[in-house]
Amino acid sequence: MNNKLSGWDDTIAAISTAAGIGAIAVIRVSGSKAFEIVNSLFPSKDISSLPSHTLHVGILQLEQTVIDEVVVALFKGPKSFTGEDTIEISCHGSSFVQQQVLNACIQKGARLARAGEFTQRAFLNGKMDLTQAEAVADIIASNTKASQKNALHNMRGGFSNELKQMREQLIQFAALIELELDFATEDVEFADRTKFYKLIEELNTATNKLLQSFQLGNVIKNGVSVAIIGKPNAGKSTLLNALLNEERAIVSDIAGTTRDTIEETMNINGVLFRLIDTAGIREHSTDVIENLGIEKSLQKMKSADVVLYIFDVLSTTASELQNQVNIFTTESIQYILVGNKADEDNYNNFTGIENIQFISAKQQRGIAGLKEALFKKVVHSSIESENTIITNARHHSVLQQVRQCLHDIKTGLDNGLPGDLLALDIRRCLYFLGEITGEISNEDKLDYIFSKFCIGK
Amino acid sequence: MNNKLSGWDDTIAAISTAAGIGAIAVIRVSGSKAFEIVNSLFPSKDISSLPSHTLHVGILQLEQTVIDEVVVALFKGPKSFTGEDTIEISCHGSSFVQQQVLNACIQKGARLARAGEFTQRAFLNGKMDLTQAEAVADIIASNTKASQKNALHNMRGGFSNELKQMREQLIQFAALIELELDFATEDVEFADRTKFYKLIEELNTATNKLLQSFQLGNVIKNGVSVAIIGKPNAGKSTLLNALLNEERAIVSDIAGTTRDTIEETMNINGVLFRLIDTAGIREHSTDVIENLGIEKSLQKMKSADVVLYIFDVLSTTASELQNQVNIFTTESIQYILVGNKADEDNYNNFTGIENIQFISAKQQRGIAGLKEALFKKVVHSSIESENTIITNARHHSVLQQVRQCLHDIKTGLDNGLPGDLLALDIRRCLYFLGEITGEISNEDKLDYIFSKFCIGK
Repeated sequence: MNNKLSGWDDTIAAISTAAGIGAIAVIRVSGSKAFEIVNSLFPSKDISSLPSHTLHVGILQLEQTVIDEVVVALFKGPKSFTGEDTIEISCHGSSFVQQQVLNACIQKGARLARAGEFTQRAFLNGKMDLTQAEAVADIIASNTKASQKNALHNMRGGFSNELKQMREQLIQFAALIELELDFATEDVEFADRTKFYKLIEELNTATNKLLQSFQLGNVIKNGVSVAIIGKPNAGKSTLLNALLNEERAIVSDIAGTTRDTIEETMNINGVLFRLIDTAGIREHSTDVIENLGIEKSLQKMKSADVVLYIFDVLSTTASELQNQVNIFTTESIQYILVGNKADEDNYNNFTGIENIQFISAKQQRGIAGLKEALFKKVVHSSIESENTIITNARHHSVLQQVRQCLHDIKTGLDNGLPGDLLALDIRRCLYFLGEITGEISNEDKLDYIFSKFCIGK
Repeated sequence: MNNKLSGWDDTIAAISTAAGIGAIAVIRVSGSKAFEIVNSLFPSKDISSLPSHTLHVGILQLEQTVIDEVVVALFKGPKSFTGEDTIEISCHGSSFVQQQVLNACIQKGARLARAGEFTQRAFLNGKMDLTQAEAVADIIASNTKASQKNALHNMRGGFSNELKQMREQLIQFAALIELELDFATEDVEFADRTKFYKLIEELNTATNKLLQSFQLGNVIKNGVSVAIIGKPNAGKSTLLNALLNEERAIVSDIAGTTRDTIEETMNINGVLFRLIDTAGIREHSTDVIENLGIEKSLQKMKSADVVLYIFDVLSTTASELQNQVNIFTTESIQYILVGNKADEDNYNNFTGIENIQFISAKQQRGIAGLKEALFKKVVHSSIESENTIITNARHHSVLQQVRQCLHDIKTGLDNGLPGDLLALDIRRCLYFLGEITGEISNEDKLDYIFSKFCIGK
């Protein structure tokens, strides 16, 4: 494995904390000249002689111009995030000061880091494999308990370990089969075909399980989009408020949460549900579907992961509802029927129709039950388990190729394919497994993967 | 001096980096239980036994739930910003993770810090005086070289030292005069009245100089608002673009600067000029003044620190211009006349009228000269000098009271006021000087001052 990329010897710098004004901000400098560069800006101490993992207060200045009073945190490679010499400069959090500190580092020879370049270097220096590096980006983007937990599991090597085990078992057989090739004329079988067949089936099961987890992983990572649909006066806006109000009460308890970011989202059991296209519902109490026309309303429903179809139990007949259900079924739309204005007696008409939740949006009755139903609609397995969940489309795509290879190997075994051809299929399978963890990689692909990270990480 | 405030024994915590998503974020915990609290969340090491100013990597977890892999920075009091035991937890910069880390600290006994409370504690623990603490807030808010430089000067005690010197000199005389009172019957004068008179005059000069610097300080700290006014087709929108475009070219060189924040501002020699009320200019090329009516246009001009009055040199007569100047003078409006569409020959008509800059907005000629004129209009003294510049309205207001006291002392000396009455005036003067640095203070006033800081500082 050659992880040496072009331009990798230089020292990089970036503001690593969120953009904007804070009490403090952190500028990260990493590379062989990190200590030299910061030393030239930090006259009060010779930091190059100081031990790793220590903190030092002093004035940061460029030539004669004082920039700020800062704290420098020293991490000597390889005991750092990137594996290189790294210094984190903690300065006052004015945007201007942050920029001045960064510019000073650049004037002294650092280069502005590309997006994800610190993590890329951590990967290149063998501090983590590719799935772990990708999990670093996921943990930064995580916005619910489930997404954070899963990213953390992968950052700590959960997924990598599974892949590593699969790879190691396969390598053993590959070695045995390739050994057979050296003795090809003698027609020996070092690799026990029955055992091998069993292994391939096990690997196939594991791969399928990982692939299946992607649906859940997607839900965890990206949340679920929900559309509220219904006739005029069915109670769409009241339902919207009922769903969001409850959320607001919960969220406003958490200090520092800005209202804006959670405006139209609900967190159900740690999964994020986004109520999409709610502007229309808020602005007009008039109907959306009828204004839109059939084609457009179908389009809107299809753009959502789940549709909440709200209807008035008092003015809707069972056959009307059944017609609506037929449309959903035909169009493969995931839905929950929400019978509004329900009290204890008035919804017996609808027995026999599945997938209904009865509520009173106005009196906020049945809202918790509706949320639970919504959650169960998209989350089929437990998100509390310690199983690995795939959240990354790249992993999903490569795992599909792994599955194809396993299928080819199995077919080969069934048909008594000779060892040299089997070995080719195994090599191909190993290649794809290695591609997920980055053991097999190419520069362009790596650059692409890391370019989607944020700057400063 | 009793700096002990209510509720000051507890341990406080806050997110100290800017709000939003970054690569990393820092949660600061300060107080007597900081080590105990973080220790209970950091199972891999017993941090309470580890030396100050060291960094430790590990998993942060609340009971059995892993939150994140973090770096903790240990600062043992009094060698910390606040003077108390302080820990800075550096976690992944997802808003969710930040919140989880903060919540974990709070669950283990920390209290959410109030705005400015870390700096308030630094003040209460004698790590800095009040002007230095206020300069911390100023440096965080600084957005230009001049504002940052001035805040840094004051944070490092520049202003404090001047006040301290004034105070010490005054205290000497106060002591001598109060000594006279003990020997009142003997009619002695320990305090040399001539020397004292000279000192009061010196202090008066120094106070006046500080008071005068407030105009510049205000400019440095808050920037200057500029209105572009003129008849239709005089070239207002072209001038606006010429002023901003040049700026854009400069600003876009600086990495990480968001376009939004500098939209309508220019940085001239380190001072920020805000072009106010430009929406009208951008949206309509039609005139603003004429649509507004005389009353409203006057109001608009008065709301600006400086008015750029743009006129077309080809279609404006000297007497028309003189009428406009008369309005500005009558209304005490600061202005610069901007003769647009000027080439070398066509602006001789206006000789005799002062305060004119000739430009061609379209050809971007004369823009640099106009900017320099704008700068000189508001900045009368050098911002490069090492003199203390007052930027804080509180300081200005108290210094005015100091000046009044000095005036009273001087009048007293002129009229041969007896020592006991002089001593009263001196004490009053000392009181106000002490109030600026916080040596004399009360709880409510302090709480008010620090409440204007940002959270986490």
